[in-house]
Amino acid sequence: MRNIAIRLMYDGSAYHGWQVQLQEQTVCGILEDVLSRLTKEPVKLTGCGRTDAGVHALRYCANFKTDCSIPVERLPLAANSLLPDDIAVVAAADVEDSFNAILSCRKKEYTYRIENTRLRNPFLRDRAWFYPVRLDESVMARGAHAFVGTHDFAAVRSVGTETRTTVRTIHECEVIRSGDMVFIRVSADGFLYNMVRAIVGTLVYCSEGKLSPEELPAILESRDRRLSGPTAPPQGLYLTGVWYSGAAGRLMGDMEDRMFP
Amino acid sequence: MRNIAIRLMYDGSAYHGWQVQLQEQTVCGILEDVLSRLTKEPVKLTGCGRTDAGVHALRYCANFKTDCSIPVERLPLAANSLLPDDIAVVAAADVEDSFNAILSCRKKEYTYRIENTRLRNPFLRDRAWFYPVRLDESVMARGAHAFVGTHDFAAVRSVGTETRTTVRTIHECEVIRSGDMVFIRVSADGFLYNMVRAIVGTLVYCSEGKLSPEELPAILESRDRRLSGPTAPPQGLYLTGVWYSGAAGRLMGDMEDRMFP
Repeated sequence: MRNIAIRLMYDGSAYHGWQVQLQEQTVCGILEDVLSRLTKEPVKLTGCGRTDAGVHALRYCANFKTDCSIPVERLPLAANSLLPDDIAVVAAADVEDSFNAILSCRKKEYTYRIENTRLRNPFLRDRAWFYPVRLDESVMARGAHAFVGTHDFAAVRSVGTETRTTVRTIHECEVIRSGDMVFIRVSADGFLYNMVRAIVGTLVYCSEGKLSPEELPAILESRDRRLSGPTAPPQGLYLTGVWYSGAAGRLMGDMEDRMFP
Repeated sequence: MRNIAIRLMYDGSAYHGWQVQLQEQTVCGILEDVLSRLTKEPVKLTGCGRTDAGVHALRYCANFKTDCSIPVERLPLAANSLLPDDIAVVAAADVEDSFNAILSCRKKEYTYRIENTRLRNPFLRDRAWFYPVRLDESVMARGAHAFVGTHDFAAVRSVGTETRTTVRTIHECEVIRSGDMVFIRVSADGFLYNMVRAIVGTLVYCSEGKLSPEELPAILESRDRRLSGPTAPPQGLYLTGVWYSGAAGRLMGDMEDRMFP
């Protein structure tokens, strides 16, 4: 049996996230339908993680087992001809039998985009958090530093999904201003539910003076969600990187072509 | 009575164009409602032109007469707080009594965006024409040259709106490739219905070898719509410039900050 990994990009505005839910349109559900039609087999996809309703992906990886003989080179165009315009298969590869898009993942990166200007751009609707008060990116960057490293992140997540442990390792947490846009880029070995959005809300609280960057280590240590900032809205969040070794690693690229800073 | 000009930007995906139509959502209709609420008077807007369903505007100008005393500096934020996210008032100015957004217009510019790549970007859905076969921009540029100048453009328009004459002067008609994007920029003293979209369809026919750039002068001269190329789809079309003299000219800016090449 083959194991095929696909690299995806999607605008999540119209979907109830990645994961299949009864009676709701999800990215996974639509892809499974399309791949089942293509392969003439029922396809069960494993995604590299859940994304919430309204969250986007510039790089997403999923895999499925199949007996079909479609060449991987032909799969993207064949799938895209059946997919709606807001989901695209960018590439596909035959990968090792043991590969699993979520379990084999070594590192993931999310980028959160804030439109920080008094006058919003209609073309960023559903694609950024419109925040009209000038943000202080240097205060936010000081706050971001507190999240880097191995910590218990219970204070910056939403309860709702089961997890063995709330300890994760954040490799990078950067705040980058580019004109009227502020990007918060976070990479980690894994993320808790709503973790990036709670980090973003906390950093915005730092800019607003409602929290000080120096308080954040103690807030993390408290494990108390009520002490950190609010959960930022979903439309600013993009999955921007997923790292694997082997064939799937090559499929997901070297990040040279990132669309965000 | 004051005469106020407003500078707008809108994503036309969700609307049936600019012009008010019975029972359809239009940009003009929504703006008139919002401005009427703000000014507490019935507002009648004059727009700088009709845009079709699905067509966008990076720069649009409209004006209205009012007795209200709202300062023009406050109007954009006040209007935007009531407008849907896909329409924004960028600026407003008190203008000369005689100013009329359509009759005072000296020149307009449209830019058509083609996403020319085999794999479409989901984030360009409704915002570009996805055309997967490689376009030859040098052939298209040779064709574009034929449209420059004062001509009868009856061969590249759709019938449907009344017009005194089908003679117009095109100042520039350029084809610009930027990576996977091909932009066709056309400025003129005025445009006929669907004229830019018919020009784009005709230039794509040149790239496809279905027409030769050298044939275009004779096609224009024939005034026969059946001899030119098809009408390109609306979602690639953006109104990108409107020129006036006086206060409205300053309002619409110096084009230094254009978003497209």
